[in-house]
Amino acid sequence: MSGQLTIVGLGPGDDRYVTPEARAALDAAEALYGYGPYLERVPTHPGQRRHASGNRVEGARAQEALRDAEAGGRVAMVSGGDPGVFAMATAVCAEIDQGPETWRTLDVSIIPGITAMLAVAARVGAPLGHDFCAISLSDNLKPWDLIERRLDAVASAGFVIALYNAASKARPWQLGHAFNRLARHLSPSTPVVFGRAVGRDDEAVTVTTLDMAHETQADMATLVIVGSPETRVIERDGKTPLVYTPREAAPVTA
Amino acid sequence: MSGQLTIVGLGPGDDRYVTPEARAALDAAEALYGYGPYLERVPTHPGQRRHASGNRVEGARAQEALRDAEAGGRVAMVSGGDPGVFAMATAVCAEIDQGPETWRTLDVSIIPGITAMLAVAARVGAPLGHDFCAISLSDNLKPWDLIERRLDAVASAGFVIALYNAASKARPWQLGHAFNRLARHLSPSTPVVFGRAVGRDDEAVTVTTLDMAHETQADMATLVIVGSPETRVIERDGKTPLVYTPREAAPVTA
Repeated sequence: MSGQLTIVGLGPGDDRYVTPEARAALDAAEALYGYGPYLERVPTHPGQRRHASGNRVEGARAQEALRDAEAGGRVAMVSGGDPGVFAMATAVCAEIDQGPETWRTLDVSIIPGITAMLAVAARVGAPLGHDFCAISLSDNLKPWDLIERRLDAVASAGFVIALYNAASKARPWQLGHAFNRLARHLSPSTPVVFGRAVGRDDEAVTVTTLDMAHETQADMATLVIVGSPETRVIERDGKTPLVYTPREAAPVTA
Repeated sequence: MSGQLTIVGLGPGDDRYVTPEARAALDAAEALYGYGPYLERVPTHPGQRRHASGNRVEGARAQEALRDAEAGGRVAMVSGGDPGVFAMATAVCAEIDQGPETWRTLDVSIIPGITAMLAVAARVGAPLGHDFCAISLSDNLKPWDLIERRLDAVASAGFVIALYNAASKARPWQLGHAFNRLARHLSPSTPVVFGRAVGRDDEAVTVTTLDMAHETQADMATLVIVGSPETRVIERDGKTPLVYTPREAAPVTA
């Protein structure tokens, strides 16, 4: 009998984002794999094995889960947010690509989740309301000059930009460099949203502008959205402003 | 008493994608607004008013819902996918921006949903596994030359590209033109995914290559994903191939 591996997106934060499809897959699994804090969000079932691992061992975690499924198990890999966005689905596919032929015979399925940029955007309005992109600022696996080239490309072409992996203790300067790079193309008044730990008790979302944005406002749990030249802010008395990007766009003249 | 307007993302397809947060908001609403087919996906509750409308009247629908909320109602606006991605949250924000001052005093909240590109990507692996963008191919509200400029910018900089509003009866040629434009930058063997009606009974997902992709393969319910130069396809005997974009990226040399 062939094993199964299901990669399950939990969404950000808490249970309010866990879809019925994800819940059913978690309940049905015989073994669960994942980064420790994500696994802790999943209720335990009697007899269900759990294999927590650290946040820098995606490849090894994927291999373990694939070997477990190969042995005939019904295995779930949990992922924060959406598993396909800078997360575990890519790591699992890469291991299948490079691994033994038998891994290609496994039933592999992926259950989508709410990715961080959607949750952060929802908190402030609709900043991703028109053409947008998602860029990882981590230069662990790609050169920094490529990241700068990509920032240039999208900022000059009018995309809203969601920045994943914006900052960490090991990568403290990248976000500041990115803001400086974007400032070559975008007005100082361009709206910037910092969304930290959305859906958790310590959630903090702030709206500022590109000239006031600073890399120290972000940590490992922060997603940053930088507006396009079309993005607008609606100020509201006694309420947080609404940020949105209209569906209409004029030609870019730059 | 001030009214409330909650814009609720249903995700694509069927109930498996409706988050607990979305479900609770739909249950609590006194009045529901939305495009007819989306409203039909929401179970009825006694005493809950329902206001269905066509798919080309986003502004008028948003105004109606805002007036209802202004009168003190607990109003929900339903949206397919995620309300913040080419959908109703932007339309509501635009009406608040241009409308009477009182609309800025309303409690407006947005509940994120699974957007089509995440659901389609999950069906085939992890094509959005690294830097990616989402572009609407509708030239109803922006000029076609801007769309071409944006396609040039992201294709030449190595982004995976998700195409929303790829085709409709009124816009039959745009997707073919987009493929031709992308072929200036991308190899003929670049993976292309057509994801139609994901999560519905008539779901159809196909994986092809840029040289074989044709605009007639898409309709109003189709989301298209075009890979980057890094995107890979894993062939599997008797199974659909897996498509993924690795986390590692080499410098773009073009």
